[in-house]
Amino acid sequence: MKALFYEIANEVENTVKSKMKRMDLGEDLGIGADGTPTKFIDDAAEQVCLDVLAKKEKKFNILSEEAGFIDNNAEKILVMDPIDGTHNAIRGIPFYALSLALGKSRLSNVELGLVRNLVTGDTFWAEKGSGAFLNESPIKTKQYPDMDSMFSLYIGERATPQTHNVAKIPRRGRALGCASLEMCLVASGAFDVYYQNYSPSKYSMRVTDIAASTLILREAGGEVFNDTYDILDMPFDLKSRTNVIAVGDIRALEILRNVVV
Amino acid sequence: MKALFYEIANEVENTVKSKMKRMDLGEDLGIGADGTPTKFIDDAAEQVCLDVLAKKEKKFNILSEEAGFIDNNAEKILVMDPIDGTHNAIRGIPFYALSLALGKSRLSNVELGLVRNLVTGDTFWAEKGSGAFLNESPIKTKQYPDMDSMFSLYIGERATPQTHNVAKIPRRGRALGCASLEMCLVASGAFDVYYQNYSPSKYSMRVTDIAASTLILREAGGEVFNDTYDILDMPFDLKSRTNVIAVGDIRALEILRNVVV
Repeated sequence: MKALFYEIANEVENTVKSKMKRMDLGEDLGIGADGTPTKFIDDAAEQVCLDVLAKKEKKFNILSEEAGFIDNNAEKILVMDPIDGTHNAIRGIPFYALSLALGKSRLSNVELGLVRNLVTGDTFWAEKGSGAFLNESPIKTKQYPDMDSMFSLYIGERATPQTHNVAKIPRRGRALGCASLEMCLVASGAFDVYYQNYSPSKYSMRVTDIAASTLILREAGGEVFNDTYDILDMPFDLKSRTNVIAVGDIRALEILRNVVV
Repeated sequence: MKALFYEIANEVENTVKSKMKRMDLGEDLGIGADGTPTKFIDDAAEQVCLDVLAKKEKKFNILSEEAGFIDNNAEKILVMDPIDGTHNAIRGIPFYALSLALGKSRLSNVELGLVRNLVTGDTFWAEKGSGAFLNESPIKTKQYPDMDSMFSLYIGERATPQTHNVAKIPRRGRALGCASLEMCLVASGAFDVYYQNYSPSKYSMRVTDIAASTLILREAGGEVFNDTYDILDMPFDLKSRTNVIAVGDIRALEILRNVVV
């Protein structure tokens, strides 16, 4: 299965790079009158995933951001976000990723997760019980507290007031606009915390965004919570939404819990 | 001169990529007992710049973050930051750049500026009076207000309280940790605003960080201010520090000025 995930990731990376290059050059790629560049690139990447899977003998059900749920009468579900961080991609901010996860029904039973940085080609991945990796190297989260703390946050008009107080805590703050990769950077010890807290929460994360990165972070020694600080779980569907507070070291939680508005 | 800047950028990009790869692989690169990985990679990149320049017949004085001022009895000064965003580089956050600018004495007389994204290889550049470019394509700033506004900010414990209120304004917020590239992304219309406001300001930007990106943004139609909203100017030295508020469209200023603590 890991080989299949890599195959999909390579195909998506190649396709997205070629389409982005042609868009940069101002080529008309047939983005329909009712389409947006965002939707166009998401659809193109999703089609690549579906095309690779269609050629394989082994079938999976699929849950994907654009196509929804595809029932192939299989036991397991492949949960994917073909491009997480589409707004970065479209604006020329070089930080966006493909997210692929495999499980039976919900976040807590994801058994394989892969996040591919579509700009650098780096791959974060994990198999349940076997640790987490960046390319071929094992990764681990960092201890907290930390003199040189670094958090990544979702900021802007839809962030809760708490968020903008949490942003005052770390020695350095980031906001990179791609949840899956930001959670992987908690897994690798680059960040101590990833803090995403929208209001209203109807706009917040879907399982497609975070299924892979949640497993990767847990396998690297971190944990993922919702905005009431319960350990995060959610079913494989597109209706469910959640806020995401991800930490490398559980000790960071006390600091976050004590932030008032 | 543009050809020389590209030559330096290519050499720095190659060197940094190779050293980062070897560090990722855990190789001992001879980082002395008293050195940090940050200082090591900054020094290595600077040495590449100095080596390229030493081979050239035409001489410039040099102002660089690590080496300081090098007087070659020349008319013009090459102002450089070999790696802006070193903390990103060291932690595996793929967003850092080389900044090169040429001028006589201060920000206002910079005549050529180049910012190279050392991860993607993209190059932002401008010659005074001739517009700004991303690789070979001309770039322009975006009009404000904007339904889909995006600001990039410096957040964290050293940011002013105003900063964390400005972070609540845009539809989307980013904090990418590399001022030169973030200002170039205002120039290209990705961001409406780049807002960097430290306290105390003794830790804020030096001219080496922003000499190139200030010209690039001005040539793309934007403007750069200090934290009292005066048009930014500063001499070529390493003592002077400034906060930086950069806008693509001057109309964004009224919004920023009205933010209270």
